[in-house]
Amino acid sequence: MNEVLNLGYARVDLDRESRQGLPEVVYGPGKTPEQITGIVTGLLAHNTGPVLVTRVTPDTAETVLATVAGGTYDAEARLLLWRPAPTGPFSVLVAAAGTSDRPVAAEAVAVATAVGLDTDAVHDVGVAGLDRLLQVRGRLQGADAVIVVAGMEGALASVVGGLVRAPVVAVPVSTGYGASLEGVTALLAMHASCAAGVSVVNIDSGFSAAMAVHRIAQAALPGKSPDHGGSW
Amino acid sequence: MNEVLNLGYARVDLDRESRQGLPEVVYGPGKTPEQITGIVTGLLAHNTGPVLVTRVTPDTAETVLATVAGGTYDAEARLLLWRPAPTGPFSVLVAAAGTSDRPVAAEAVAVATAVGLDTDAVHDVGVAGLDRLLQVRGRLQGADAVIVVAGMEGALASVVGGLVRAPVVAVPVSTGYGASLEGVTALLAMHASCAAGVSVVNIDSGFSAAMAVHRIAQAALPGKSPDHGGSW
Amino acid sequence: MNEVLNLGYARVDLDRESRQGLPEVVYGPGKTPEQITGIVTGLLAHNTGPVLVTRVTPDTAETVLATVAGGTYDAEARLLLWRPAPTGPFSVLVAAAGTSDRPVAAEAVAVATAVGLDTDAVHDVGVAGLDRLLQVRGRLQGADAVIVVAGMEGALASVVGGLVRAPVVAVPVSTGYGASLEGVTALLAMHASCAAGVSVVNIDSGFSAAMAVHRIAQAALPGKSPDHGGSW
Amino acid sequence: MNEVLNLGYARVDLDRESRQGLPEVVYGPGKTPEQITGIVTGLLAHNTGPVLVTRVTPDTAETVLATVAGGTYDAEARLLLWRPAPTGPFSVLVAAAGTSDRPVAAEAVAVATAVGLDTDAVHDVGVAGLDRLLQVRGRLQGADAVIVVAGMEGALASVVGGLVRAPVVAVPVSTGYGASLEGVTALLAMHASCAAGVSVVNIDSGFSAAMAVHRIAQAALPGKSPDHGGSW
Amino acid sequence: MNEVLNLGYARVDLDRESRQGLPEVVYGPGKTPEQITGIVTGLLAHNTGPVLVTRVTPDTAETVLATVAGGTYDAEARLLLWRPAPTGPFSVLVAAAGTSDRPVAAEAVAVATAVGLDTDAVHDVGVAGLDRLLQVRGRLQGADAVIVVAGMEGALASVVGGLVRAPVVAVPVSTGYGASLEGVTALLAMHASCAAGVSVVNIDSGFSAAMAVHRIAQAALPGKSPDHGGSW
Amino acid sequence: MNEVLNLGYARVDLDRESRQGLPEVVYGPGKTPEQITGIVTGLLAHNTGPVLVTRVTPDTAETVLATVAGGTYDAEARLLLWRPAPTGPFSVLVAAAGTSDRPVAAEAVAVATAVGLDTDAVHDVGVAGLDRLLQVRGRLQGADAVIVVAGMEGALASVVGGLVRAPVVAVPVSTGYGASLEGVTALLAMHASCAAGVSVVNIDSGFSAAMAVHRIAQAALPGKSPDHGGSW
Amino acid sequence: MNEVLNLGYARVDLDRESRQGLPEVVYGPGKTPEQITGIVTGLLAHNTGPVLVTRVTPDTAETVLATVAGGTYDAEARLLLWRPAPTGPFSVLVAAAGTSDRPVAAEAVAVATAVGLDTDAVHDVGVAGLDRLLQVRGRLQGADAVIVVAGMEGALASVVGGLVRAPVVAVPVSTGYGASLEGVTALLAMHASCAAGVSVVNIDSGFSAAMAVHRIAQAALPGKSPDHGGSW
Amino acid sequence: MNEVLNLGYARVDLDRESRQGLPEVVYGPGKTPEQITGIVTGLLAHNTGPVLVTRVTPDTAETVLATVAGGTYDAEARLLLWRPAPTGPFSVLVAAAGTSDRPVAAEAVAVATAVGLDTDAVHDVGVAGLDRLLQVRGRLQGADAVIVVAGMEGALASVVGGLVRAPVVAVPVSTGYGASLEGVTALLAMHASCAAGVSVVNIDSGFSAAMAVHRIAQAALPGKSPDHGGSW
Repeated sequence: MNEVLNLGYARVDLDRESRQGLPEVVYGPGKTPEQITGIVTGLLAHNTGPVLVTRVTPDTAETVLATVAGGTYDAEARLLLWRPAPTGPFSVLVAAAGTSDRPVAAEAVAVATAVGLDTDAVHDVGVAGLDRLLQVRGRLQGADAVIVVAGMEGALASVVGGLVRAPVVAVPVSTGYGASLEGVTALLAMHASCAAGVSVVNIDSGFSAAMAVHRIAQAALPGKSPDHGGSW
Repeated sequence: MNEVLNLGYARVDLDRESRQGLPEVVYGPGKTPEQITGIVTGLLAHNTGPVLVTRVTPDTAETVLATVAGGTYDAEARLLLWRPAPTGPFSVLVAAAGTSDRPVAAEAVAVATAVGLDTDAVHDVGVAGLDRLLQVRGRLQGADAVIVVAGMEGALASVVGGLVRAPVVAVPVSTGYGASLEGVTALLAMHASCAAGVSVVNIDSGFSAAMAVHRIAQAALPGKSPDHGGSW
Repeated sequence: MNEVLNLGYARVDLDRESRQGLPEVVYGPGKTPEQITGIVTGLLAHNTGPVLVTRVTPDTAETVLATVAGGTYDAEARLLLWRPAPTGPFSVLVAAAGTSDRPVAAEAVAVATAVGLDTDAVHDVGVAGLDRLLQVRGRLQGADAVIVVAGMEGALASVVGGLVRAPVVAVPVSTGYGASLEGVTALLAMHASCAAGVSVVNIDSGFSAAMAVHRIAQAALPGKSPDHGGSW
Repeated sequence: MNEVLNLGYARVDLDRESRQGLPEVVYGPGKTPEQITGIVTGLLAHNTGPVLVTRVTPDTAETVLATVAGGTYDAEARLLLWRPAPTGPFSVLVAAAGTSDRPVAAEAVAVATAVGLDTDAVHDVGVAGLDRLLQVRGRLQGADAVIVVAGMEGALASVVGGLVRAPVVAVPVSTGYGASLEGVTALLAMHASCAAGVSVVNIDSGFSAAMAVHRIAQAALPGKSPDHGGSW
Repeated sequence: MNEVLNLGYARVDLDRESRQGLPEVVYGPGKTPEQITGIVTGLLAHNTGPVLVTRVTPDTAETVLATVAGGTYDAEARLLLWRPAPTGPFSVLVAAAGTSDRPVAAEAVAVATAVGLDTDAVHDVGVAGLDRLLQVRGRLQGADAVIVVAGMEGALASVVGGLVRAPVVAVPVSTGYGASLEGVTALLAMHASCAAGVSVVNIDSGFSAAMAVHRIAQAALPGKSPDHGGSW
Repeated sequence: MNEVLNLGYARVDLDRESRQGLPEVVYGPGKTPEQITGIVTGLLAHNTGPVLVTRVTPDTAETVLATVAGGTYDAEARLLLWRPAPTGPFSVLVAAAGTSDRPVAAEAVAVATAVGLDTDAVHDVGVAGLDRLLQVRGRLQGADAVIVVAGMEGALASVVGGLVRAPVVAVPVSTGYGASLEGVTALLAMHASCAAGVSVVNIDSGFSAAMAVHRIAQAALPGKSPDHGGSW
Repeated sequence: MNEVLNLGYARVDLDRESRQGLPEVVYGPGKTPEQITGIVTGLLAHNTGPVLVTRVTPDTAETVLATVAGGTYDAEARLLLWRPAPTGPFSVLVAAAGTSDRPVAAEAVAVATAVGLDTDAVHDVGVAGLDRLLQVRGRLQGADAVIVVAGMEGALASVVGGLVRAPVVAVPVSTGYGASLEGVTALLAMHASCAAGVSVVNIDSGFSAAMAVHRIAQAALPGKSPDHGGSW
Repeated sequence: MNEVLNLGYARVDLDRESRQGLPEVVYGPGKTPEQITGIVTGLLAHNTGPVLVTRVTPDTAETVLATVAGGTYDAEARLLLWRPAPTGPFSVLVAAAGTSDRPVAAEAVAVATAVGLDTDAVHDVGVAGLDRLLQVRGRLQGADAVIVVAGMEGALASVVGGLVRAPVVAVPVSTGYGASLEGVTALLAMHASCAAGVSVVNIDSGFSAAMAVHRIAQAALPGKSPDHGGSW
């Protein structure tokens, strides 16, 4: 089987779709529009599920979209997308602490939607105004999984972790200044969280959080995978 | 409803069982045997699911077990346990990189088992001998979730993350010396992992990893919760 | 005026009582019982307010108390005390996140009480069980100042900071493991807090927090200073 | 009661004024002029006290002021302000170590003034020229609270902390180079201070320091709150 | 013997060629084109082997090449080169984890080739797609030495280190974000590697890795040094 | 082929000898004497080259040696050894900066000797007494490879790196105090070294340095491997 | 006596000249040309010794020099200077490791010369080419004090510290990349130096090193202070 | 000339006395009493100045003194000493911030005295009680050099640096807790000091500070070296 597509400048892992339920996702930074075009074209030709390119600038997006038909660009999420998966039954709620966390939350929402998760979001529910958070307690407890996006001290992860029984994936955000240490403080704090079973992904990686929930959805709905386009 | 049991030295969160599917888990360090006895007695009386105390020394365990009937102590995992949940259908495989990672893996196994996960483990599958890992590839791919336990550089999380479609929860371990920085290097490396959707818990916390999978299992099997003793 | 008492091994700042409203507080570690005895004797003779020695081991305390009459020792707070101030009208509530935070909270309570603050405490109100915290919301909002004592991720400071209008002084605690980094994570997180106007003192320093509130009380009740024994 | 104003892009905490004595303060970075305009308009309509937006660039300020009448912009402090509180009886002195600390000191002064504190400032009183500091000793000792603004090694906090009996809130500043580590050294040094009861806020946050003193003033003058416009 | 060429702005170590088998390599940053021209001219006149200048910008390269005849510039590697050594019998394979590691790999390839190593490269063989790596297992095991270039968590070094018997020199790369800490995480992880005998060079230093292999080649082929132009 | 020996508590990589020229080396810490005995017995039975156990305490060594015949224990190097390789023609000189570096140097010497390298050592040649180092310049330049062992600031690596043409493998040592940061300073300094092509292994790992040279020797003498017992 | 000149934006420490033998030196960054002009004018009027402004950009320098007569600007050192002290008998040699250390060395040379030290410099004497350093051994040993300027690993400080009996003041430089950590590695390494009695100043602070030697010269030549213009 | 004494376990730098004005000083930790005895015996036989061994435990001291006649042991300073230099005319004042800084100050005093400096000390002059410091202002200003010993935030170095014209060598001390980071905070703060020309030595190294002043004294009194026993 020809499971690797060797483009010279990249070795595309064509087998990933069958192995992990989703084609390889392309990380945009450091790649030229031509390289992205080549990889995307290869993935569209050899795989059947959604094709995503993350952290793409508007200029690069425009160039690639002009060449590879059928794609869309989400500017806030910086995501290029072809063949999004149909929305499945597994729901995820993205809860963001403040307005400065919006870009990271947007990436989580866009990627989660693209891979077929039933995605929703609430913004500006940081713990300094606890009532704002308690107002959405029902929505938090109703989701199959929750992604918490928070910078500064990241306390929202602990509080949400204590409120819901669902999986909570925390994304530290590099907003804030001084003692925020560009997201390192939030990352450490989320790990030290007093709420049991909260897991954490890399700073600013809405993408990783969405992918972690994609894995969870596949575990939750294993028999249904073939039914919705190969994405999970 | 009286959802908090105020023992003076502790406020036991009795509501947690109904809110999160598991009674509050007791963190042992810094508590006297008398305090542990009091909290455990309260939880056994007011809740119905498994009661766990983590990071308990053998001496403390002996004292508590002499007072509170029906418990067991797992010395390698340092876990005190009453009323374990019956084993449910959700499987988790704990994969440990080296023999020095055994105590952390043991805690993950013991907690996962206690809360009703169908738990198994493979040891000594670090990436320096890749064939050892590839030999268990089938077991890794067959699990509903995988917990990766690894110290030193933590590379096992990336490799396993690329092999399976299931949720992967990585536990950095404080073994190793020098540049291992007591687990901080593994924690950072696991976050920087090139494998998408791997999430990470605190250093040495087999407990947190098991709880993260417990959350996942509840998301995967929501309708079945009442069937197996209240733990998920 | 002879405002410094030169004992050879120490220069006791006798003027501090008139300058700052409280005699110099003695930091116990690194001093012999004989040195502590000498300094305390000097302070009792030349000043009129409460005399405190912090972080004293039981053995040292016993030796010193056998020589210098009229003192008491609080073992959990590790505080030696002579001539406590009468309790004044300014109230402070010490809120501790978990049972492992008790020793630091105990020091805050003991020092605050010794310098004449109207002191109370609530324990085990960590944010993972938010209802426990909301149960004491009234007590938090009724205090003239709040000291928050929390290790791990220190999220309690942000939540309390958002609930009350009073001054909030946060004490990071070195409990926890791994990513807690011996209190550094909590310290950074408390600084990065999304709640405005929360200020922070050194890791594990219940003493510093109490002294910060003592300063606040003096600002709040300037005219009453002479009325209650010189301590504020 | 409708205590949260949901603007879609933000959830404004309208209840904060009654809960904490001051309307929610808006953090400018990451918000568009349109978003700021919307939030400010909402706060002006639903609350009665001063409305502040921090860290605003001149361009953004101009755009917002053109739309929302009655505001002023302090360029050095980067503060947008509507409905400043009348000056109350509680005095605060902002003491800055060097001329490079001026912008942070300016933010502290502007915010403190806006919320009704009786604010004054002294500049360039760093400890390398101790006599400059001793010249203003009287002013320091006469203030109800002192905010110390210092970069480099932050030693001014310790020295002032030893001179006055009032609350001292220290602001580390990110000036300096090399070992200053962008303010982290000053932050750590201020925490390690040998002066008891000095508390610390985040690096460069003149805003946080002013808010900490605002809390103190409310504790000092609780009965007077209604008298001066709702701000404290 | 006149072993140092004193140009005023630099002391060129002319003896290095006889002492270490290669003329001094010039580090470009911080030097003017005129300074580079002077040093290169001196080395070409007084030494006989290859002359290299690293980390040169295109503009500087153009200026220098216009003055000093016979040189070439590799833009991706940022390397200026005169008198490359003939290719010898010692082979090195540069294995790069991802496409973002290409510039560092390019420097390793260019320097290794310039000093006479028989150099080849494979790209995009990161461990998240293990099959891509196993496909080139034969090439890895056939090389006399392997340079591993990897950012993020740097796991490729451990895996390759376990697959081959040849020397493995690992280069951490500053790609990635958040927990990658600009290459520090990869550096630490490579040191903590569970594969024995992997050695590490500075972050982003393809140059250092090539020079380390140059040293190895000289040790492997000591008698042949004079045969191929003085470079090893 | 049965390339992995599964002992339950360990999976011994029997294939490593043929893959990498040396049986798997056992890391002692965290293993019981019984576990070490089992692994060593397995390696002796299924492989033919030298068997090493590193970082073994005297008590454990005594217990294991009483059971497994033919072994020796080097107390300073903390190494257990069976079937040492005959000494081959590749020479390595271990150069240690100070007397406190001796234990790490001893491990390097013992492991290097055990795997068949022609090993020698010089001690106490730190750069503060440069003449001591220059006295052994000839020995340094005559070795096929040099291992530099140095704590504190690790400057010896740079100086030796500039003196010899052979491969230089640097081992940072955790001696020193304060700014030495338990070896981290030496590790960083060795990486930042101004001498080109010096590579570095983990702090205190004389073992890793010897293994790196073992790899180099195999590259240098590939045809001779079968001649001296399988170790290289 | 009016020892402080209060300009509003600055409090100039006029007493420093009599107290420390040199007028206050002005730190340029963060000050407007108008502020610098004001301070310099004040110092020239009220003091008699050399007036220095450090880290000044060319534009600012031009503006100030147009207003305040008699000054000079050293562009490489970024130093503005009026009334340089006559050269005294105390000699200092500035030894820089590489060409990238030149700007910092230039500041040390310019400041040292300005305050009356008999200053000389040698460049490019890094330890990787030890013979370059040994060539200037005589000059190093002949100086009354040595300033070592070195980035990367900073090893030059240790080697020079072992060669001379004179005071050695080491300046870590922020050149280098990766593990150099912007000078922090050199700073730590210089502190951990195996050469006794080497002291260290802040990263990139040629100014501080020159001032440290100025203090030493005053100690060496106390009786001569009045003779050479008041600067030492 | 036989300038190195090779004892096998150590290479004693006999030439250091003529090169640097003082025999090599022996660092005690990690050496057996027998090794110390051997080195000291060699230094006494081949050199003529004072012989010092630092950081020696009482047990080791007793053993060595029983064998090598004429030595003394200072328990607080942990210093073994033979042939102290006669006291010369260069004075140094050791100023310690608190009583916990005494052991480090004691080492500075003992070493300074041993090498012939006219040494005095003041204790407990930390900046929180500024008047204590101002009381000794005259003594500080009268010394030829000042050593400042301070832990916690190390602010004393800045204040003293601003008061005196003499050389100031600062020693950060690892006392304190939490944010003191075992002396790293004081080290960084002392480097970031706003007082010009203060130089810093390693954490807890009273020895290094004394040696730095010894170098200064040699520079100050070059012609007098032969007159007082060879030590400076």
